[in-house]
Amino acid sequence: MDTRTGLPVVGMIGGGQLARMTHQAAIALGQSLRVLAASPDDGAAVVTADVSIGSHLDLTALRTFAKDCDVVTFDHEHVPGDHIRALAADGVAIYPSADALQYAQNKRAMRERLSEMNAPTPRWAPVREAGDVQRFGDEVGWPIVAKAVTGGYDGRGVWVLEGTDQAAALLAEGVELIVEERVALVRELAVQVARSPFGQVAAYPVVETVQRDGICVEVLAPAPDLGAARAAEIQRLAIRIATELDVVGMLAVELFQAADGAVSVNELAMRPHNSGHWTIEGARTSQFEQHLRAVLDYPMGDTGLTAPVVVMVNLLGGPDGGMPIDERLHHMFAAEPGVKVHLYGKQVRPGRKIGHVTAVGTDLDGCRRRAARAAYWLTYGEEPS
Amino acid sequence: MDTRTGLPVVGMIGGGQLARMTHQAAIALGQSLRVLAASPDDGAAVVTADVSIGSHLDLTALRTFAKDCDVVTFDHEHVPGDHIRALAADGVAIYPSADALQYAQNKRAMRERLSEMNAPTPRWAPVREAGDVQRFGDEVGWPIVAKAVTGGYDGRGVWVLEGTDQAAALLAEGVELIVEERVALVRELAVQVARSPFGQVAAYPVVETVQRDGICVEVLAPAPDLGAARAAEIQRLAIRIATELDVVGMLAVELFQAADGAVSVNELAMRPHNSGHWTIEGARTSQFEQHLRAVLDYPMGDTGLTAPVVVMVNLLGGPDGGMPIDERLHHMFAAEPGVKVHLYGKQVRPGRKIGHVTAVGTDLDGCRRRAARAAYWLTYGEEPS
Repeated sequence: MDTRTGLPVVGMIGGGQLARMTHQAAIALGQSLRVLAASPDDGAAVVTADVSIGSHLDLTALRTFAKDCDVVTFDHEHVPGDHIRALAADGVAIYPSADALQYAQNKRAMRERLSEMNAPTPRWAPVREAGDVQRFGDEVGWPIVAKAVTGGYDGRGVWVLEGTDQAAALLAEGVELIVEERVALVRELAVQVARSPFGQVAAYPVVETVQRDGICVEVLAPAPDLGAARAAEIQRLAIRIATELDVVGMLAVELFQAADGAVSVNELAMRPHNSGHWTIEGARTSQFEQHLRAVLDYPMGDTGLTAPVVVMVNLLGGPDGGMPIDERLHHMFAAEPGVKVHLYGKQVRPGRKIGHVTAVGTDLDGCRRRAARAAYWLTYGEEPS
Repeated sequence: MDTRTGLPVVGMIGGGQLARMTHQAAIALGQSLRVLAASPDDGAAVVTADVSIGSHLDLTALRTFAKDCDVVTFDHEHVPGDHIRALAADGVAIYPSADALQYAQNKRAMRERLSEMNAPTPRWAPVREAGDVQRFGDEVGWPIVAKAVTGGYDGRGVWVLEGTDQAAALLAEGVELIVEERVALVRELAVQVARSPFGQVAAYPVVETVQRDGICVEVLAPAPDLGAARAAEIQRLAIRIATELDVVGMLAVELFQAADGAVSVNELAMRPHNSGHWTIEGARTSQFEQHLRAVLDYPMGDTGLTAPVVVMVNLLGGPDGGMPIDERLHHMFAAEPGVKVHLYGKQVRPGRKIGHVTAVGTDLDGCRRRAARAAYWLTYGEEPS
């Protein structure tokens, strides 16, 4: 508790762009986010007043950090479950709990749990040895998908397998794997849901996520042509997952959609997520404010759209050299005065996610074109052709 | 220039809520606002990473603060013009300039300048002695309004005079005065306009400001029943003032409207202003982002409304005792999940402006009721009757 203001202190472990944007939301709530950053140059560390530098793997650092926080939460999934349990045993209110977070940290545990609760998932199998891979591929049909049980993100830790050779090599390196059928998907969807310790839930509209090389490049909110019944089914599924897994805070559920419209769960993330960045301008309550409200057990905010169409495009660092970023920003602002930009305070490197842009309006094609044009200016420093 | 990100560093003199909310906007632009705060407890000082503590009256402190800033600007109007001129002579890019800011610092200079440019103002007169007050009152009819030439705000520094006694007492105390006719106003309006060093201007929709005891309590955007022609006339007037006074940054023009619809200029402020807080959720570009864009000579952002109706209500600290603020916030969130809150990080004191709330929607009465209900919960800790 901040004794001056009478308002709570939330600590976030990890100082990346999620903490950076959560701080913006914390300011409006009268708070100042407390951040445990790995480096003083981290995106959140350079904009917050209350920063500790330390490793999320160091229990002593975590304990020191947590001491004056009313609630502790996460910018990423990399804090070991045992550390989270130790903090909880100390009496720290830490959300999501280790028991919940394991399903975002461990894909095998996630697949097992979702299968138990009869949530739709791709067919999958655990892997102990190369023979398991062979049997699974022969059963569901090649190619299949192998995923690292822990540590993958943005397309890393995922392999498409035509046979067992690569899997055998990975297993020999000690990489734990699961295998999944390669879903004949027509598109990917995502939905954000918030849940509080009390158990209140609030689901956002379902969105379409557009991937390139395994990285989300564009989010369309709401997902075009989804249909109200399918959207409600997906929101109810996400709420059921949040509730059964006892998630507190934001839960992002990423899904595959097949040609017949059916969906299956691809991934879970238990924090504000890239697929929810559109909510900053596009929803009455941003996922960052909602995450704070959830972990603080405040009543949830309105998740309604602020406009019929919202499009978010990620900004990737362009090729080295060329026009300085500040000059690119001038051009982008002149070209698209209605597009909103979010830069994460990172040094620009080719392919690095350095920010995102959002266009809000009434016309899907127009919003996509405007957001893409703004992103192109920021990435390449020139008008798209 | 932040050499790591390649983005500019803006310094703001003054660490109040305007700097606090400007920091939120700076974060999205990839920046971190540099703040010169009077106290480490100031609203902006507690949420920013780059804070200096010092007085805005201390030229040495100002020089040290300005040294690494690409642009310096203000959270308030209290920096002496000579200090601003000294910084400009040092080569500091500081906006608005002393020449422009004098019209927000000195009401006599403002009235003279607006009269010269034939901008509509109430009839007024400078005051050297009590006899000037008598002559003016006899000419325009009693009561009249006396205003302190410098230093007034939120109803302070304004007196309604039935005769010369009070004016004579103020003059004897050394208070510099002007006198104005008491305008038969039906309501007050305000308009925000941004202007860049290049000279680009961008005007926001005209709003109605509702005052109680000289303090703005509520802002309705757009001003109901104003009419497109009158709105355009007011926007053009504000743009003309910004241009002729060479304002850089945000300019707020506060106006009186008479029964026949005609308007006259009441006050000018050259910074983000309370009458523009509605823009955070209610306009595509908030006045805080726009102020940064203006002083950085970036192209201006879209000033369009995000919804047909936006209502902002100021939060004043309620009576001492009763429900803690955090508990009030719980009730407010539960009662009005769609109303957005902005708390300024201040200790709650009776009558102190501690934040504001904003309701966005399609129905004026509904938005007013929702915003008022949320504000009542936060001020009094109970349901309004």
